[in-house]
Parts: sequence; C-alpha cells; structure tokens
Amino acid sequence: MSQDHRYQPLTKEVEAEIHEEEVTATKAKKKYFETKTIFALLCGVLLVPTATWIFGPTNLIEGELVQSFGSEGSEPVSLCETTDLLSIQAPRKNIWKNLSIKEATDIREWLWQPERGLNLTRSAIAADNDNAIFLIEAYVPPKAAALAYLNGSAEPPLKYAHAVVHHGNTEQIVDYLIGPVPLSSKTSMRPLTEIYHRPEIPYNAHGFNPNSTTMGLLLSSTFGPMSDITMDLFGGISKGHANDTLIGSATAPMSYDGSWRKAWVGLKLNVPGHYLFPVDLYAYFDLSGTDPSQWKLLKLVYNGQVFASEAEFRQAWSEGKLKKSKKPLLNDTSEWATRTRKNKGGRRDLDDRAGPRSVSFDGLRFRVDQEEQYLTWMDWSLYLGFERDMGLNFWDINFKGERIIYEISPQEAMAQYSGTDPHQATTVFLDRAFGMGASVKELMVGYDCPAEAVYLPATVHTATGSSTRLNAICIFEKDSTKPLSRHTGWLKDEMGAIKGYELTVRSISTVGNYDYLFDLTLQLDGTLELRVSASGYLQGGVWDPSQAPYGHQIRDTSMGSLHDHVINYKVDFDIAGTRNSLMSAMLEMEETTAPWVDEDWGETFKQQRVVRKMIKSENDSKLEYAKNMEGMYIVTNEDEHNSWGNARGYAIHPGASTIHLTNLDCKRTENNVNWAKHSLAVTRRHDNEPYSSSMWNIHLPGKPTVDFYKFFDGESLEQEDLVVWLNLGTHHLPRAEDSPQTLTNVATSSVLLTPYNFHDYDVSMDALNAIILNAPEPGKPWNVDENGVKPSYCVPRKLPDFSYTGLLQFEEDGSPATPAEIIEQRKIGT
Amino acid sequence: MSQDHRYQPLTKEVEAEIHEEEVTATKAKKKYFETKTIFALLCGVLLVPTATWIFGPTNLIEGELVQSFGSEGSEPVSLCETTDLLSIQAPRKNIWKNLSIKEATDIREWLWQPERGLNLTRSAIAADNDNAIFLIEAYVPPKAAALAYLNGSAEPPLKYAHAVVHHGNTEQIVDYLIGPVPLSSKTSMRPLTEIYHRPEIPYNAHGFNPNSTTMGLLLSSTFGPMSDITMDLFGGISKGHANDTLIGSATAPMSYDGSWRKAWVGLKLNVPGHYLFPVDLYAYFDLSGTDPSQWKLLKLVYNGQVFASEAEFRQAWSEGKLKKSKKPLLNDTSEWATRTRKNKGGRRDLDDRAGPRSVSFDGLRFRVDQEEQYLTWMDWSLYLGFERDMGLNFWDINFKGERIIYEISPQEAMAQYSGTDPHQATTVFLDRAFGMGASVKELMVGYDCPAEAVYLPATVHTATGSSTRLNAICIFEKDSTKPLSRHTGWLKDEMGAIKGYELTVRSISTVGNYDYLFDLTLQLDGTLELRVSASGYLQGGVWDPSQAPYGHQIRDTSMGSLHDHVINYKVDFDIAGTRNSLMSAMLEMEETTAPWVDEDWGETFKQQRVVRKMIKSENDSKLEYAKNMEGMYIVTNEDEHNSWGNARGYAIHPGASTIHLTNLDCKRTENNVNWAKHSLAVTRRHDNEPYSSSMWNIHLPGKPTVDFYKFFDGESLEQEDLVVWLNLGTHHLPRAEDSPQTLTNVATSSVLLTPYNFHDYDVSMDALNAIILNAPEPGKPWNVDENGVKPSYCVPRKLPDFSYTGLLQFEEDGSPATPAEIIEQRKIGT
Repeated sequence: MSQDHRYQPLTKEVEAEIHEEEVTATKAKKKYFETKTIFALLCGVLLVPTATWIFGPTNLIEGELVQSFGSEGSEPVSLCETTDLLSIQAPRKNIWKNLSIKEATDIREWLWQPERGLNLTRSAIAADNDNAIFLIEAYVPPKAAALAYLNGSAEPPLKYAHAVVHHGNTEQIVDYLIGPVPLSSKTSMRPLTEIYHRPEIPYNAHGFNPNSTTMGLLLSSTFGPMSDITMDLFGGISKGHANDTLIGSATAPMSYDGSWRKAWVGLKLNVPGHYLFPVDLYAYFDLSGTDPSQWKLLKLVYNGQVFASEAEFRQAWSEGKLKKSKKPLLNDTSEWATRTRKNKGGRRDLDDRAGPRSVSFDGLRFRVDQEEQYLTWMDWSLYLGFERDMGLNFWDINFKGERIIYEISPQEAMAQYSGTDPHQATTVFLDRAFGMGASVKELMVGYDCPAEAVYLPATVHTATGSSTRLNAICIFEKDSTKPLSRHTGWLKDEMGAIKGYELTVRSISTVGNYDYLFDLTLQLDGTLELRVSASGYLQGGVWDPSQAPYGHQIRDTSMGSLHDHVINYKVDFDIAGTRNSLMSAMLEMEETTAPWVDEDWGETFKQQRVVRKMIKSENDSKLEYAKNMEGMYIVTNEDEHNSWGNARGYAIHPGASTIHLTNLDCKRTENNVNWAKHSLAVTRRHDNEPYSSSMWNIHLPGKPTVDFYKFFDGESLEQEDLVVWLNLGTHHLPRAEDSPQTLTNVATSSVLLTPYNFHDYDVSMDALNAIILNAPEPGKPWNVDENGVKPSYCVPRKLPDFSYTGLLQFEEDGSPATPAEIIEQRKIGT
Repeated sequence: MSQDHRYQPLTKEVEAEIHEEEVTATKAKKKYFETKTIFALLCGVLLVPTATWIFGPTNLIEGELVQSFGSEGSEPVSLCETTDLLSIQAPRKNIWKNLSIKEATDIREWLWQPERGLNLTRSAIAADNDNAIFLIEAYVPPKAAALAYLNGSAEPPLKYAHAVVHHGNTEQIVDYLIGPVPLSSKTSMRPLTEIYHRPEIPYNAHGFNPNSTTMGLLLSSTFGPMSDITMDLFGGISKGHANDTLIGSATAPMSYDGSWRKAWVGLKLNVPGHYLFPVDLYAYFDLSGTDPSQWKLLKLVYNGQVFASEAEFRQAWSEGKLKKSKKPLLNDTSEWATRTRKNKGGRRDLDDRAGPRSVSFDGLRFRVDQEEQYLTWMDWSLYLGFERDMGLNFWDINFKGERIIYEISPQEAMAQYSGTDPHQATTVFLDRAFGMGASVKELMVGYDCPAEAVYLPATVHTATGSSTRLNAICIFEKDSTKPLSRHTGWLKDEMGAIKGYELTVRSISTVGNYDYLFDLTLQLDGTLELRVSASGYLQGGVWDPSQAPYGHQIRDTSMGSLHDHVINYKVDFDIAGTRNSLMSAMLEMEETTAPWVDEDWGETFKQQRVVRKMIKSENDSKLEYAKNMEGMYIVTNEDEHNSWGNARGYAIHPGASTIHLTNLDCKRTENNVNWAKHSLAVTRRHDNEPYSSSMWNIHLPGKPTVDFYKFFDGESLEQEDLVVWLNLGTHHLPRAEDSPQTLTNVATSSVLLTPYNFHDYDVSMDALNAIILNAPEPGKPWNVDENGVKPSYCVPRKLPDFSYTGLLQFEEDGSPATPAEIIEQRKIGT
C-alpha cells in the first residue's frame, strides 16, 4: 500500500480501495482466493474477516501460507487510558524500610554530640586514626514483634538504627544499635554484638574509606620512583597524578584473622576498560594498623621474579638480568575494551529499526504504595527494603492472602580467582564489603529494564554522606511469551491456555568491574524465581602460556581468569505459619514385583521411587542438590495439609547454573564463606542470625565476624521457623566472547521456589487473561471464551527521549553536595 | 486527567491545561517542584522535559519518587509503517523441506500402481492384514551433496522420498526409499535398510492405525459383558458405544523384540480430562499378528487382585470376595479437570485488563522466504524442515556468514512411569511412534505465541491422507527484558548496554495428554537456546496409599505418578567447517605454590584449574555433565583458531533441568533408549545414522530398529564431522498443582549452545539497538549515543479478534476431506 501513513479514520472508500488492491494484484493471489472459497465451503471458519493473509507464489495446499495479523479499525483511535502507576495503601507500615535522609542526618548529628563519648571526626575529613562514622542504617525489627504487628495484635515494633563506627583511635570497629528512633529522650545506644561471632571487630578488616588518601600516597611513593622502569616494561607510570598512565588495584583478603593487614596491588594501564589491561607487576604491602608511616612495601613480583625492594628490582632491571614478559601494546586505537560499536561485519539487516517493545495498552496491572514501598500484583503483595551492604530485599511476601515468605535478601556475593600471578591467585572478593547496595546504579531506562517499567529510587547513608539514585529499582510486568499452561483437547473445556505473565523487580549493582542484575520474579501460580545475571568487565589477568590452566588469552597480553561467583540468599519461608519442616524427596531405584507381573518381562522389574525423609536437625541440613536432579528439597508444614492429605509446602527447584563453590579447602576461604560450600543449607531462624556474612568477613577468613557454620548447633528443624540459605552463581571460565563485557545470557543463575501441594490444584486457573476453546461442527466458528478480556485498541503515550540523572549526593549534614564532590562520587558511583 | 481519551492532536491550549493541572494540584506537588528547582540548579540534568513525574506525599529526598514515562507528542500520530513480514529470497533451494500435498499424492498413486507389486489397499479402508501406506515423506539428502550444493559447487542433490508400508499380508513393515522425485521414468524404489539395525521391521511393532476398529471391538467385547461389574465398582460401562462412560487406553511397550504384541489397557471415566480419571481395572491382551480373531484377553487386575478371565473376576465379584478399592466420585460437577475458571478466591485485582503486549512499532526485524521456508534475523539464517515423527527441525544454521550447525532436530521424547498398578508400572512411551510432528497443533494466537508472531503452516502425509495445520509454527522476536551486556563505568565509552533481543521459533505438539513446547531461540551474540516446556494432562493413576512412593494424591481417587521425560536432540555442529573435535574442560583442585608465596598464607595454596582433554574416540564419548557444573564440553575445530590462539568452538552450556533418565537398568528400556542414559553423547556423523530412534523403537526395547549404542564403534572424534546428541527433560514428581494441567514454568528444560573462543570478542558489540553513556560536567546533560535508533511513535495496527481454524484434512487422493472426517480427525488431532 502506498497510502499516506499519517493516521486517518478509515472510510468505506479507503476500505474498498484496499480490498480492490488485495483481490486484483496477482494471479497467485487470485488462485489463493479461489482456494479460500473452496475452503470456506468446506470448513467455514477459514475466512477470518479481520486478518490479513500473506502468501507466497504457491497456493494454500502447498503448505506455504503465512498468517500475519494487523488491520485498521474503522473508528477513530483514542489515546490509551493512563498507564500511570496505580496507587494503593499498604495494609501496614513498612517496618523494614531504610532511614530517610533526615532520619540519618539526625542520627549522625546525635552521634557527633559529645554526650555519646565517641570522639568523632567528620568522615569527610577523618584520617585513618580518627574515629568516624562508616554507616548509618535502619535495623530490622525482631520477627515476633513484626508478626504481631502484621497480624494486627500489636503496635509496630519500635524502630532502631545501627551505625558502624571506625574507631581509628583504638583500632577497633563497633557496630552500634541505636533506638528507638526518631530520636527522643528514650533513645540510647549500645554495641551490637549478638549477631557477630567474635567479641570485637578488628580495625584491620575495615572497609574502603573514601576519604583516605594514604593508600594512594603509598602507591605513588612506591611506583613513582620506578617510573623509568615501568615506562620501559609497560610504557606507563604511576606517580599519583591525575594523568598517570598506570593505576593500581588491591586484592582481598587483606588479613587472615585481623591481626594484620597486607595486600597485593596490581597495576593496570589507565585506559577505558582498565580491568582488562593488567601489567605484570605486583606489590605486596603491609597496611596494618592506622599509622600510615608504618605501612611498607614487602615485595615486588615481576614476571614470576620476586624482589624484596625497589632497589633489588632496579638492580636486576639496570643490569639487564630481568627475564622480561611481553610489553603491553601501546597506542592501540581499536578501543576494544570499550562499548564503542564494533562493526567489522557491517550493520545487521533491519537493526536500524527499534526492536519490539512491551506496552500495557490497558494500563499497568500492578500497584505501588510509594510511601511504604509496598507492591501488589495479581494476588501477590510484598514490602521492599534497601540496605548499603546488599541492596534490595523483600519482606512479608504474600500470595492469595497467605504469607509465603517473610524475608528474601541477598547475603553475600563472592568471587574467587585462580592463576599463577599473585593478583589472580590470591583474590577472594566478598562484595558485601564494598557495599552492593551502595553500588546499585541508576538503571538505563529501556535498556536495563523495559521502558514501561516503574522506577523507584534508593538511598544509603555512609561515610560519604547520603547517596540517592533515581531509577535504582525497576518493576515491570512481562509476557513470558509462553502459556503458563495449555492443552489442545477435544472434550468440553479441555482446550485452552493461560497467558504467562510475570512481574519482575530488579536492581543492578556495579561493584567496580562487575555488574550483577538481581531479579525477583513473581508468577501467577505462586512460583517465585530468584535470578542473578552478570555483566561488566572481567578482572583480567596478564596472559602468559603458563596461565593456560587458569583461563584463556583474550587479547595481546590479557587473559580472562577462571573464577567462581557464588551469591548467597536468605529465604525465610513461612509455609502456612512459621512452624515448618524440611523434607528431602529423593529418587531411588528399586527392584520390585507385583501380583500381576507377567513372564514376558521377567518376575521382577526395576523402577524409580521417591524416598521422602524429614531432615530433622541442623546436624544434617547442609545440602547438595541431587546428582542428575534426582530429587528435591521441600519446605513443608507437617501440621497443615492440602485436601489430598499432603503437607503443604514449597519446593526449591534449581534453575540455571545453581552451583556452589569449587574450592572447599583454602586458607583464604577457611571460615568466612561456609555458606558457599553447599548448594543450600537450612537453619532454625533466630533474630541474632540475620545474615550469613558481614562486611568484614572479606578480610577475616580465619576468624570471621560471621561464621555461618556457627548457625548449625544441632537445633531441631521439625516444625520450627526455618531459613533456607541458598546459592546462585557460576563457574566462570572466560572466553574471548567475555570481551569487552560479559554476557548475561550465559552468565546467569536461577532458582524457582514453587508451591508443592501447597494448594489443592493450580490456582492460576483463576486467571482472566486466559482462553477456553471448544470445537464446533464443521462450518461453524470455534467457541471462544476469553473471559471478556479484550485489549484496548488505543494510542500509547510517546516515550520520552532517553535521559539519565546520575548520582544525587548529600553531605553529612544532609545538604546537597557540590558539583566537584559529585564528580568525585561519580568516579566511584556514576 | 479527565480529558476525553479519544485521540486528538495536542494543541498548545491542551498542553497548557495539562501543565496547569500538574503544577497546581496538591501541596505535595508544590513542595516537589521547589525541590526540583533546587536540584535543577545543582544537577541540571534532573529536569527531564518529556517525562512525567509521579510522586507520593513526601518529597524527593525522602527517596519516595517514582518515575513513569509517557507523554503525548504535539503532532498527529501516524499509523505505524507496515508490520507485515518482509520477504527475502533464500540463497539456495530448501533441500530439506517436506513434500507438498501434490508430491505426496503423486507418490501415493505411484505406489498404488500394480507395477510396484505392493498389493496396496487404501489406508482408509485397509484391515490389519492388508498392505497399506502408513507414511509418505521427503527423505533428507546426503550431507556431502547438500554441502556441495550450498557452497555453489554442485546442483541440488536429487530429491528422494520414503514411504512406510504396513505389509499386513506378510506381517512386516518396510520403509521404502523412492526417487528421484518428482516422479519420472528414472524413479525407482528400494527398501531403506541402511539406517536400521535389524534387517526387518516386525509388524508387531506397528504404529497406531487410525482406520482399524479391531482394537475397539476387542475392548467392547471384553468390557461390555462386564458392564454390571464396572457399573458397581466404578459407576460406568464400556460397550463400544459413543455414549460409553468408561474408555480404555493402552500402554507401551507392547513387545520386547517384535515376536509378540501384548498390551495393558486401563479404563478411565469418559469425562473431560479423562486422563486424570483412571479406574482400578486393567486388562492384559495378546494382540500379536494381524488376525484379530487370535487376539485375546490374558488377565484382569482389579485393586491388586489378578484374574485369568472375566469369569474368574465375575465369580469373585458375585461372591463378594473382591477386596474393593474406593469407588470414583460420580456426579462431581466441579469440572476440576477442565480449564473452566476456578475462581474460589475471586478475581485478581486488575486482571480484567489485558496484560502487556509486545509491539514492533518499527516493523518486524526478521524476514522469511515462505516458499523456501527460510528465515533471517540479525545475521542469522536457517532453513526449516518438518516431519511426521518429530515435527520441526532446522538446517544450515548460519551466523555472520558462517555455518555453525548443519542440523538441529529433535529425535525422540520418552516418558517412563512408576507405580504399583500395571498401567503406570509398565508405561514407557516413546512419542516418536505417535508422530510428534503429526501431533503438532494449531497455535492459539496471542496465547501460545505473541499475537505479533509470524505463523507458518505445516503438513504431513500419513495413513489418514494429508493434514495441514495453519499456524503450526510461530516466529517472533522478543525483548529478553535484560541487557545482553551492560556496565556502569566512568571512563570514556565504558558505560552502556545492548538490548537483549532474541528470536524464537516454536511449535507445540500435543501427544494425547501431554503438550510439548519446542523452542529454538537465537541470540545476538551467536548463542542458540534449545528449550522444551511441558503442559497438558498428567497420565493420572489410581490413588491408593500403597502408591505413595510413586507420587501424590491429587484428587479423591486420582494421583500424579512419578515419571521421567527425556527428549533427545541431534545437533550436527560444523565449527568452521565439518572437521571438528570434542574437548572436555573440567575444573579440578590443585595444591600448588609460587615464588611469591608469602608465609602469611602458608607455603602452598589450593585453587581450581581447568584440565582440558580431547575426547578422542567414540569409546569415551557417552558423557555426564559435571557434578556442580564443574566443567563443560566444547565442540572445537582444532585446526582453526581465533586471534588469541584458542581453537574456535561452541560450548554446550546446560540450562534448566538438563537431566537424563534415572532408570538405567530396565527390560522395558533395555536397548531402545540408550541415548537417554547419558547427559549427552557424541558420534562421528554418518548419513546412515540420521536418527537416534525410530517410530518402532517404542515396542522393541530388546531389539530396536535403531540401537543408539551401535553408533559407537570406536571411531575417531578428532577432526571429524561430529554430531552431539543431547538430552532435555524433567524428573516429574507431580504435585497437586499439576492439576488440572502441568505448568510450563517448572516443567521446562533448556540448553545453551554458545560461542567459545569462536570469535575474537563479543560480536554483539555491533548492535545498533544499544546505548553508550558518558558522564557530563555537573549541570550538563549526559552524553547519550543510541546509534540513531529511535522508535517510531505511531499507531500500531488493531489486532483481529481471536480466531482458530482447526485441522485441514485431505483424502489420500489429495481432495479435501468431508466434514464428518474432519470431526473424526479433530478427535485425535483437534
């Protein structure tokens, strides 16, 4: 059709013209219409008046027909009813949400008061040996008090905060519990110790102090004087200047038990994608304590050669005794490590068209209470929380009027590397230390989440003040593109389908090189999916053929190094109440017989059976998924049964790449990642076992502040309040295709939590977005029941141009930060 | 806004009115705008002119802001440019596509000619002891000839067909190779034996003859006379009448080696969803040979009690000696086993709105050559094939100008059950026998696939004539809703994302009770996903507490029985040519040391490494996936390397539920499903090893026509043409939520085939639907590069009302079938 595509209501004349065009265009078309007439007589139902048929040069019975839908209505098209988010009033206050900027600022000022006796310096100007605030955050209420409030039998639990203070004066860290808040004469503070497994938190395990310059000074005082050497070997220098061509990055753990702090620092070319440009020089520093004058270089490693000092290294270099490794390519203008388009092969056909986009023509089908951070969708409801350590979490997750899960929260994300060089071989990152919540980034609307998603902000309160990111969380409904259930049947009402809609809540955390996409997806049948996908940069290594057992070369002098990612989740199930049990249902083989067995097949036969076993205590609750998935674990309530006599439950159904840590015997992961050593583990829930890790675990493998194994003290798991600690992750053996950035399609891991005899039948059968078909007599149209759901034909709103706000930063006193400070924060926070 | 939603171009006056409404509505809004002004001064970029901001009662810095997009343009909105499918000319003829109805009809008539000497009776009227055609289909060309044609060095290979003929006269089945076609004086035929592992195909392994009434007569002659008993025990009768209240269904295998044919038949209430209404009576019949007068009842089983004859059964019943099982509920009007809405809990909030829908506002981005069944999308191309046994398959799959895979085709789908009763305990279905291609059903547009999908027809030629289903195959592009890669970075061009678009080709096969969704999904980086999801009805069992080890009660007298589904795929990789090798890359632990090791952490350390091993021959190529996914298999070309020295390859990356069969030692699966006993297996490719199973394997576990293990004869796998035979499936321990129909979210299994050092970097970096962001100075807008891709703002076409055509049936002479025949076919084919 060559008509003007500007919209106009179709007139009868235009319709006639189109019809004329259709029926007279080609002989093939004519043949088709003849065929169609025959079929119309025979089948009656083939002629679909509102459909357009497209076809090839052969006729219908040749099996070449393509059906493509689309036609214009004859009435004017309205704007779609608003797709604005619908509001809802949460039934209760959100007792898990983080402090507002005002609340945090009030607490910070309260802590600063001399009456607290903390001798605090403002974090912005604190030196390492000063006392300064590292974190201020809401503290989760006791579950019993929370449940009493949720069931209407009590007032909301008193609100508490906690504050992590770096006592540089005394080389200790204290986590203070503060409350009640808002502040009043009743507010007091005390060290929060009951959730930790050692009485004190050693200062040597401290987190990154954004205002400390001492580490930078140490690096420049170390590498600056050897600029002639680094220029010779790598073509770059590191003098502590803004235009340095080499920069450093340290590994973890920096301690074993907190009695010292030492770190390997590797150098990288200071170019975009620098994570992929390591150079072959590593320095080991003693960084113990708070007096930088005591910090010192312990050794240097270049190309496998060890030097006790710069002087020793210089001597070898100047005397030509160095066994040299390959010098990095300089002046490489290919920008291979950036996101600039790589279009060697030209553009792909039709890629200049924007791809398909999801539109809720009838308006969004979920509701959000923005004040209470509360969400409802299709009989689901939940509250959102947000924290500095691990970001987004979920509370009081209800489906069809019953709480299924009290809490879902990510606990830790570890990455352990392998290699021959000290950088890769020693790295075990635990990203809770870096603050995966503080590292949650503004989502790129339309790229990170569908354009139609609803976006929410998130705020954390740290040593840098308060940081708010708009669009930190997205919520969207999607069509899974497959029916949740369907059947083609012949008898009455057997045939039909339910549309597979799902609701996803997502946030993305960029911790330096790596990007983690955290998804919670709700489904119509009561199933929840937890999924983590990864992208961003590898922690690249220096390629050398001796590194072959630890990865692959991905560029001239760079490699992708073998590493494990393991991400731990806390899932606090409440299956028909808090009294729950844990069932193992394993498939086993049996040889059996039966009275009817026939000699044709032998006197016995072999088949699989399920062996159900209750896991009775924490002595037996560190679990592996069954080999070949021959079995599963189910959280049940043995006192509550469905109508068919089975204990109501939810099964833990592994999805993609549900792995645990490979390396089970390593001093650098001795006791601080015990959760990572099993597929999942189940404990009796306690308020003083809120997290499987802590922000200091990273540097305390020998004596961690939270030792997950200490949760296992033989307690009963029979009809107790249970927590499932489960892992997602990947064994990542990088390939060239991980350059420049890792792909989320392969680097993804998921688990389904799915009703298991929880209901009497599939409750998604109540869906209205569903169809039932019944076959007619030949010649009659099919009987179609779509529950009266008919998508609106309307004009959706225009999408605005892409926009991005960037970090909103606030000083410690709550006032907006200066532009210069914003730039500094962006460098670490974008 | 209370404006009329009928579409009208926005005037300046309307815009002003909206603005007025926005800025004056509430105090909270006013407060927000004050805050916004402050931010505008500080950040500059916060004010997004085209975005609408919605917000709660608190202000921005409280972290409560929600951003929702949508605004109206000020110019009239055009109709979207056509979303019609774009055509393309396939570079070569599709040499794998099935016969047209004319071609099949010509061959059928040719076979009927006395010159062929087959003594054929028309299938429509053939008795069991007649000779009749069972199948006519295209036969795949030799690969060498196909490749020669594809690379332009030869004419297309001569086209051949094959025809399966039931020689009822001699109790044999013969598969004839016929060609060349179209028919000419050169056309000849011969038995096709080289692809089978026994010289003859025994008649006792024959498939379901749709025109045979003898089995039905046997059932009615068996159960009709015991109507008084069945009425007493189950409230139903089976007399062979249309209004029977009990119907029968047989299990498989019916033979061990083809020397006899015997079957267990169970009875079910003849109500919608009858698969879930089994009753406790089972009959074992001898059905050997082609003379129904020799067929006979061997035994009856009721509630675990065995009777040699109806007389014996009747005696026990009439003497009151039967130990009775629970009588099924009759007159249950709950329709629990149908798809009628179950809305005990009322309707879900907002479910009366149609959910989100994907729209290609800029038009579809893939092309199809309908004549050649050829498809292109984003540098991918492939040809489609279709066959009676297993349905849709894929050929000559190219990405960016290189063939990656020559053939992907499903091979077999098995289901093996467990239980105490003879129906469940003996069932091993191999659905190739039933014709998963013949069972491919018309897709429910908008439910089985997105409404916007392109739908293609499919035709098979069997004993019933030719059957065409419109909308048998759907092709659609979708937004995965997550970026394929992304990063938030600070340095130049580090930050951005690629939209995660994917293309799916789907068909759905309903084989009696079960529905299989077969998906092939192509991704932008060269990854392919194979996925099978299941829905439809369980094969229900009769519940009794003794069945507890084999499933769960799901209704009053019904249970869901434990079973394994295993689906085998053939993937014929051609990685940079046909000379390929197989690498195992397994993760192992090592204890090692290095010159730089520091005493702080001990003199040695433990880490994981990858151990690469070439699997050199078919002696070692039956493989398990590594425990805890600690390793992978990669098909490589050891003579072709990427720029970094690694052999180009594709990795086999398990996704959800990549299981193999549990039961490895059972007479009913002794040799006929050997492919199911491993995660995957790799063989050297041969034209005479085209399939891992056959339509007769179902009944020949002891001596199958295709014994997969016979492919393994020690041949080299080093730089040979390799085929990977991999399995998808589920161990299905049904729960109440499998009623009425199984859910595709949990019952799903997938594998990714992903480039592994095949490229030098991630080639999806050429995508235009991508964004690069660079941070600005504070107060300036962000630098945004979207490659000029800007989605059209336009009015999409109106979707037509739902319509369904139903089966198009053709007689053996190619003429359309009568309405009565269509009804009969619908009962089995809908």
